[in-house]
Amino acid sequence: MNMPEFLSAMQPELDAADRNLVDGVLARQLRPLAKTITLIESQREDHKQRAQRVLEALLPHTGGAMRVGISGVPGVGKSTFIEALGLYLIEQGLRVAVLAVDPSSSVTGGSILGDKTRMELLSQNPAAFIRPSPSACSLGGVAEKTRESMLVCEAAGFDVIIIETVGVGQSETAVAGMADIFCLLQLPNAGDDLQAIKKGIMEIADLIVINKADIDPSAAMRAKSQIKTALHMLRPASPNWTVPVLTLSALKKGGVAEFWNTVTDYRKALTASGEFDAKRRHQALAWMWELIDSGLRSRFRSHPQVKQELPALARAVEEGSTTPSIAALRLLGHL
Amino acid sequence: MNMPEFLSAMQPELDAADRNLVDGVLARQLRPLAKTITLIESQREDHKQRAQRVLEALLPHTGGAMRVGISGVPGVGKSTFIEALGLYLIEQGLRVAVLAVDPSSSVTGGSILGDKTRMELLSQNPAAFIRPSPSACSLGGVAEKTRESMLVCEAAGFDVIIIETVGVGQSETAVAGMADIFCLLQLPNAGDDLQAIKKGIMEIADLIVINKADIDPSAAMRAKSQIKTALHMLRPASPNWTVPVLTLSALKKGGVAEFWNTVTDYRKALTASGEFDAKRRHQALAWMWELIDSGLRSRFRSHPQVKQELPALARAVEEGSTTPSIAALRLLGHL
Repeated sequence: MNMPEFLSAMQPELDAADRNLVDGVLARQLRPLAKTITLIESQREDHKQRAQRVLEALLPHTGGAMRVGISGVPGVGKSTFIEALGLYLIEQGLRVAVLAVDPSSSVTGGSILGDKTRMELLSQNPAAFIRPSPSACSLGGVAEKTRESMLVCEAAGFDVIIIETVGVGQSETAVAGMADIFCLLQLPNAGDDLQAIKKGIMEIADLIVINKADIDPSAAMRAKSQIKTALHMLRPASPNWTVPVLTLSALKKGGVAEFWNTVTDYRKALTASGEFDAKRRHQALAWMWELIDSGLRSRFRSHPQVKQELPALARAVEEGSTTPSIAALRLLGHL
Repeated sequence: MNMPEFLSAMQPELDAADRNLVDGVLARQLRPLAKTITLIESQREDHKQRAQRVLEALLPHTGGAMRVGISGVPGVGKSTFIEALGLYLIEQGLRVAVLAVDPSSSVTGGSILGDKTRMELLSQNPAAFIRPSPSACSLGGVAEKTRESMLVCEAAGFDVIIIETVGVGQSETAVAGMADIFCLLQLPNAGDDLQAIKKGIMEIADLIVINKADIDPSAAMRAKSQIKTALHMLRPASPNWTVPVLTLSALKKGGVAEFWNTVTDYRKALTASGEFDAKRRHQALAWMWELIDSGLRSRFRSHPQVKQELPALARAVEEGSTTPSIAALRLLGHL
């Protein structure tokens, strides 16, 4: 690549503290890894700048992990499933990081996801790293920090990054936008399907798992065939991948190996067709545009004249005494 | 309202030609109405400015119509239904305008919707005004022009504005964003329901109509009960409105009166609770923000340094040699 001057000029100068973090992460030490993520999650301006410098130094060492998004409504058994999956992967000689995207963490002040006490065995394993959801003011903020933490985990040599989220709609789109494969955990009942269809989650799933299948195997089989019908009607078959529906019981560890084999099959199928890398490139670009849009909006709102005129103009638009376009043009005219 | 100085200073000065258009529209003449809409649809900069001045002069006379959005897949019988509805409303002494939002019109160079030859009887009636979809480069552009044309029709004293669109997803959201009531026409078969659920159209519908019910009345009844079940699962009941499912045959003019009674019931229920006006205020404000966002994006893209650096930075983001946030911050730094 012939890199323009302004790009090479962007290479960061690291001071001793940042260099220590970078070296520690690359040496796969958990303490510098956790400290770097704390830096990424910080709201302080100087921390943000340090985080960007550290991240840029780590970038050449990222991209090596399989990024697995996992979603499902509360009660579907996500923690139990992730713990079983994590322990299985560690048995195979892999290192596993678990991150979470939970926008409600900014309301509650803490995360309901990724709590280490929920995954006791996994959290005690030296080949695992579990980090709760960052708290930030918006879903965009939470997702951005998680995406960057994912890159740091990759630089720290983790082979699999599991990104967990709740089944409420918007956060699923954010996680699907950073994962290589997006897996939806379902309960064996039909109402659950419709909820997932409604929220657009089933549409973005690459793999569907009916969990707790052991409780009522015949209900699980009925749910499986219903979901298959729905999938068939809901989306055109991809030339490279037909979304599978697996049944398993995380509690009894049944099906976890089959799950991972399916993830591996998915990676092989999409890599062979070039779709795997294309998806990552597309995700990164879409992310850049989201950041640009939100940056533009926040600059706009903080412009002194916009700040001064926006309330009255918004009221005039609401009351119909001016049109949305006239108001928009006037406000944009101040920039 | 205590109007700030900058708002009163925004009142337009009209020249003779524009004054003629305004007076003609207010006198309910169809020729000035059509000319004003042509001005609104024009891409020329001087036309756009004239259109805004004319529109602002008409604004005090808008808001009086019932705005009815109608959607459905090709073949569902939209034109036949709209013609039957329009003729029925004219019999009741009302004046009816039919507009269309069809983003494909910019590709085909002409509109497949709103074609007068499709509604022969209605188009010949002096109490009706039919206008095909504007052609513009984007759905946002098409929707903006249709929204403004709707206001002009209201100033011209039309009692009902029907805004028609195709059942493909995004244009439905745009139409629901400008209509008081959004009606979905369905065929009497189950696959149609799932398509509408998938595309998120059933979720935004205020009223669902199973058309062509006369062809197979028992299939129509089955479809009705399926849709009712789906609606029940898909959305929480509004405190002011439960989405009804009507069966009718536009071809035989059966059910059109019942349809209009339901629309009237809807208006009464939402007006009583204050939701009707709140919805219009919210729609206008959301529209202003869409225009602001798209204006910000287009200014950003046309900034000389952004133009120069964007291709290389986008490539670097795609290749993973820089992060989306570093690229976004650098580009935003030029503004």
